[in-house]
Amino acid sequence: VLLGINPEAQIVDLSHGIAPQDVWAGALVLRQASRFFPTGTIHVAVVDPGVGSNRRPLLIDAGGTFFIGPDNGIFSLVLGESARHQIVELSNPHYHLIPKSGTFHGRDIFAPVAGYLSLGVPAKDFGEPVENIVKLSWPAVAAVDQELHGEIVYIDRFGNLITNLSDRDLKIDDPASVEIRLGDRVIRGLAKSYADGAGAELIAVVNSWGLLEIAQFSGNAQMKTGANVGDKVYVGKRETRYV
Amino acid sequence: VLLGINPEAQIVDLSHGIAPQDVWAGALVLRQASRFFPTGTIHVAVVDPGVGSNRRPLLIDAGGTFFIGPDNGIFSLVLGESARHQIVELSNPHYHLIPKSGTFHGRDIFAPVAGYLSLGVPAKDFGEPVENIVKLSWPAVAAVDQELHGEIVYIDRFGNLITNLSDRDLKIDDPASVEIRLGDRVIRGLAKSYADGAGAELIAVVNSWGLLEIAQFSGNAQMKTGANVGDKVYVGKRETRYV
Amino acid sequence: VLLGINPEAQIVDLSHGIAPQDVWAGALVLRQASRFFPTGTIHVAVVDPGVGSNRRPLLIDAGGTFFIGPDNGIFSLVLGESARHQIVELSNPHYHLIPKSGTFHGRDIFAPVAGYLSLGVPAKDFGEPVENIVKLSWPAVAAVDQELHGEIVYIDRFGNLITNLSDRDLKIDDPASVEIRLGDRVIRGLAKSYADGAGAELIAVVNSWGLLEIAQFSGNAQMKTGANVGDKVYVGKRETRYV
Repeated sequence: VLLGINPEAQIVDLSHGIAPQDVWAGALVLRQASRFFPTGTIHVAVVDPGVGSNRRPLLIDAGGTFFIGPDNGIFSLVLGESARHQIVELSNPHYHLIPKSGTFHGRDIFAPVAGYLSLGVPAKDFGEPVENIVKLSWPAVAAVDQELHGEIVYIDRFGNLITNLSDRDLKIDDPASVEIRLGDRVIRGLAKSYADGAGAELIAVVNSWGLLEIAQFSGNAQMKTGANVGDKVYVGKRETRYV
Repeated sequence: VLLGINPEAQIVDLSHGIAPQDVWAGALVLRQASRFFPTGTIHVAVVDPGVGSNRRPLLIDAGGTFFIGPDNGIFSLVLGESARHQIVELSNPHYHLIPKSGTFHGRDIFAPVAGYLSLGVPAKDFGEPVENIVKLSWPAVAAVDQELHGEIVYIDRFGNLITNLSDRDLKIDDPASVEIRLGDRVIRGLAKSYADGAGAELIAVVNSWGLLEIAQFSGNAQMKTGANVGDKVYVGKRETRYV
Repeated sequence: VLLGINPEAQIVDLSHGIAPQDVWAGALVLRQASRFFPTGTIHVAVVDPGVGSNRRPLLIDAGGTFFIGPDNGIFSLVLGESARHQIVELSNPHYHLIPKSGTFHGRDIFAPVAGYLSLGVPAKDFGEPVENIVKLSWPAVAAVDQELHGEIVYIDRFGNLITNLSDRDLKIDDPASVEIRLGDRVIRGLAKSYADGAGAELIAVVNSWGLLEIAQFSGNAQMKTGANVGDKVYVGKRETRYV
């Protein structure tokens, strides 16, 4: 649909690996990936269980980088990084396919809008301005006594358990002194790479998203632990033990 | 292979998600997707269990849109939509890789032919004209008494159960009065979107292919029902009940 | 990352289907696929369990075709085919993302180096010359009495069991006389295509990689046999039987 409108468009298939209906995972992956694309990129995100309902189709101009998709929270984490943005509800049917289905707006609305936008149609032509959009919130990290309480927010296809604890939360002066707990498992010290954990049951590492991740070297931490998104992860200082 | 012949070719990976050897699913997806591509597109379809046997490799010129692949029925549903087409058996080895394997004509025949065709080589140069090709037939919808008898023809990766009943078969004046049966499950009324079925066990909706689909909102109807391709689906008018 | 550096780069997603950490499978697929790309292609291979450790990041110039990735053996099978090559360790941080993570050098080193290389930066600018790299060796085929002893080296997504026995090992004058054994199963004769094996439990065929493959027509030989990579495969001459 997009290439039929703009044959010169360059399409990058960022991921077809988001689990069905998992808007939160889509929001996370979009945040991590979108900041490595050049300004001017048009990001089309279609994790859209509410397609055809009264959830609004959106175009967001975030300082010259664009996001197109449903108003279901999938853009929650990218807007946090941009102070100024203009939001439009895609209410102008002139830029939609006709007839329009009730089950696939990726094809019927988002793709053609992306095509026309890439040809230079101004954002305001696609519909009415919108003030607020649906936001999912980043789960808060709690500091309790000497411990940080976080949780698993995403599990990637390697089974790595990614938490909401960022490198800024951790502020660690002595990585070897850190103790991470997940269920009844305890990981001592922060690794710098997966290979640091060769031989260990599990490792903890600050990953390429800047988030604390529990992993297994050349293995699958999800299968090893049975952990799920939402499971609690605790980070404390390893106590000096007298033996 | 294709880019080695025509470095300017623009390749779109439409799907690598067709189940192995499922020619029928390939034919369905090709029909639904190909009509949204611009005229002049060359569609290469490689669901090809008969590769290396005497099944013929084909090039079809369907009014300036081209189809390349095996003569096994995968083009059954696209030709139904085009009144005039020219078919060539890819018998001219000048446009094949040498040596040619017996197990991967996607690489050895279809890709190079697509490359040379995109450079302007005329269709007739690739081999001999062919009159008829293998056709799979669309399962007929039967009207029995006041009911339509159809079946599941495809199950997508979300577990949606797609039937052979089209919007033209349904001709529904009162969507709320329709009753759909699959096994011992009964769905009352047609939804306009998946979200219409929030809270319901299953919904029925006319999907983006124009076909009746049984789905579960934010769920997986295949896992819910255990249904398979070929299972019967009945559509009738909901009886007025006196209670 | 790459398109941010060179917006004109043409990216081909060769495979996202290599199993996690399976360097050997990556090396095999890279060998089979890379020789069909035009000279000048830059191949980026990221099966990289040792990311962030002291394993070296590499750029290899193999006669004008380039390979970028970790020094873990993934380039073992492509260098065997090129007599002359120049190898550079990617030690120059000028061409890396900053900050650089310890878990994703595909993003932080390999992609930006590929981008700058595609813009014409000479290979030597990316770091220091390297003499030797990690090599995985092709499992040897043994000839014992009248039999060849090989093994399964790869299983593709169709469940085809691909062995280390090449068409050159086989040198078969009478394909019908060959007998192939895998566990307690015996396959008589070499097929020319999968369809040759219609009706048979299993077939053996020289595949598009030039390797002996055990397959099931319109089926999955891995599921049929339960075989794994490393399982032994024996090829002998069928004995003349007097009945």
